[in-house]
Amino acid sequence: MTSPDIADLAIRVMAGERRALARAITLVESTRKDHRIQSDELLQRIGRDNSVAAPKSLRIGLSGTPGVGKSTFIEALGMRLVARGLKIAVLAVDPSSARSGGSILGDKTRMELLSRQSNAFIRPSPSQSELGGVARRTREAIRLVEAAGFDIVLVETVGVGQSETMVSEMTDIFTLLIAPAGGDELQGVKRGIMEIADLIVINKADGALAPVARSTMSDYAGALRLLRKREGDPEGFPRALTTSSVTGDGLDEVWAAITELDAWRRASSHHTARRAAQSRLWLSRALERGAVEMVTRHPGVAGALRDLEADVAQGRLSAEAAADQLLAAFRAEE
Amino acid sequence: MTSPDIADLAIRVMAGERRALARAITLVESTRKDHRIQSDELLQRIGRDNSVAAPKSLRIGLSGTPGVGKSTFIEALGMRLVARGLKIAVLAVDPSSARSGGSILGDKTRMELLSRQSNAFIRPSPSQSELGGVARRTREAIRLVEAAGFDIVLVETVGVGQSETMVSEMTDIFTLLIAPAGGDELQGVKRGIMEIADLIVINKADGALAPVARSTMSDYAGALRLLRKREGDPEGFPRALTTSSVTGDGLDEVWAAITELDAWRRASSHHTARRAAQSRLWLSRALERGAVEMVTRHPGVAGALRDLEADVAQGRLSAEAAADQLLAAFRAEE
Repeated sequence: MTSPDIADLAIRVMAGERRALARAITLVESTRKDHRIQSDELLQRIGRDNSVAAPKSLRIGLSGTPGVGKSTFIEALGMRLVARGLKIAVLAVDPSSARSGGSILGDKTRMELLSRQSNAFIRPSPSQSELGGVARRTREAIRLVEAAGFDIVLVETVGVGQSETMVSEMTDIFTLLIAPAGGDELQGVKRGIMEIADLIVINKADGALAPVARSTMSDYAGALRLLRKREGDPEGFPRALTTSSVTGDGLDEVWAAITELDAWRRASSHHTARRAAQSRLWLSRALERGAVEMVTRHPGVAGALRDLEADVAQGRLSAEAAADQLLAAFRAEE
Repeated sequence: MTSPDIADLAIRVMAGERRALARAITLVESTRKDHRIQSDELLQRIGRDNSVAAPKSLRIGLSGTPGVGKSTFIEALGMRLVARGLKIAVLAVDPSSARSGGSILGDKTRMELLSRQSNAFIRPSPSQSELGGVARRTREAIRLVEAAGFDIVLVETVGVGQSETMVSEMTDIFTLLIAPAGGDELQGVKRGIMEIADLIVINKADGALAPVARSTMSDYAGALRLLRKREGDPEGFPRALTTSSVTGDGLDEVWAAITELDAWRRASSHHTARRAAQSRLWLSRALERGAVEMVTRHPGVAGALRDLEADVAQGRLSAEAAADQLLAAFRAEE
């Protein structure tokens, strides 16, 4: 694409043209070097014309293991939001999609009703096996859908490896979806998740599972009470709730909790501070990764690194002295 | 100190001479540049002569808020270990000590009985306000006390900021000490702690507080069951226990739990893998910090970083594109 093509694409994305949006996301997902340069230009154009980082948008992270009912939950919640006149974009992060071939998140039959709505936009996970790459592409896709006028951006993940933490670091509110279970069935949530979740939603609270869901909810509510309240959050958060995507029970309460927390955080400037911290975090990570790659890929450093790793592991050398030696080797040869 | 002096100091530390050990720790705690060079030489000498990173030692992290009874707990547990013929060193990490002036952890009256034992060595926190500095000095002090023959190294922290995570990243087993409390009194543990704790010990389970302690314990035991078991850990961990440093009840059970978990992890090679991962972590952090400092302190980069931070925050530029620009600026001027 030439520069005028990119300018045109940026205008069409900002006009909310779905095909342009899909094409723009494909561009930022590409790993080709020329596409990366074009992506950067596209994002710059959209940033320049799009005021300050979509201040009105709400970015919701959603995680849950396969089978917990993420798709039906998103569809049921999304249909309610669309009915209220909101525009919702659903992005997916599935770091396993490259390995597993066909991603469950790319399945065309998912969210059939929601995907037909003009105020909804659903995009499967980019097929990348490297989480860092998925992170960048997803953050850029968030920028694009916001530029296209979607104010609710839901980023879902199946929770492989570190993907929940990554998603929480690019969203405003993080929701964990859990299946009703008790006693031995209860798998337990992955370590670290209880710490980042703003809401724990026990799904499938209908029929025979309803009482199990309520008891699962009170287990999690109890566990959440043992954690110190997050600074700047209102009473009652993190919160555990039950919901049924089939009957619709609890969906309004989930949305009410999300908007209550969001309103509180915006009023207390936590929202702005969190987004600013996130953007600093991504920049410093990118710079760290770049600086470390620049040093470790330098001839003369790579070999030394391996030897020094062993020295540090065996206690012959402090980590800091080893790092100093590596940087000195880099400087000497640069 | 000259090089022969350092060689002599190393020999005396390895012979278990307490005054030499204290002097060596003072040396590694110093921020003076000449002392840093001497420290590195000392650690190299100790490493070289000390076989592979003290494979027999057990490093225990212990955290708890002020007033929870850390000192009495450590004294009571330490006296039992000393009675069993074990040599125990207690190191402290209190990042607030520089700010607060007199550190509570430096208080001479603490652990009066234990500090008189020839098989115990107690060292207050280095007074450094910067957590990264405290981390290095504590890791180096661990190396020194292990070289001096202390096989149980207990690293305690008051849990200011990120200090628990830091301590868990330099120890084999992490223990959280909690005061009995119920309902509204219950402050809740800091986020992230439940995730790193191997043992949660409810202290002061004596007298009128005994039933409260038992109920607190079952609350935490319930919460721990909701977390997925750590890969490679035996059933029943993380575990919640009650103890009384006054009556001594539960202390044997705490030690039994620690040794059970440690034996399991050593048998399953988790122990070695954890230490190797920790040493890689510290090296890569040191290298990252060094590489990032090298880049950001470079003339021409520092100013650009501030501008680019704003661009990234406002979405005009991706974090990765900004990082690329900074690295290009560094390369151009180097």
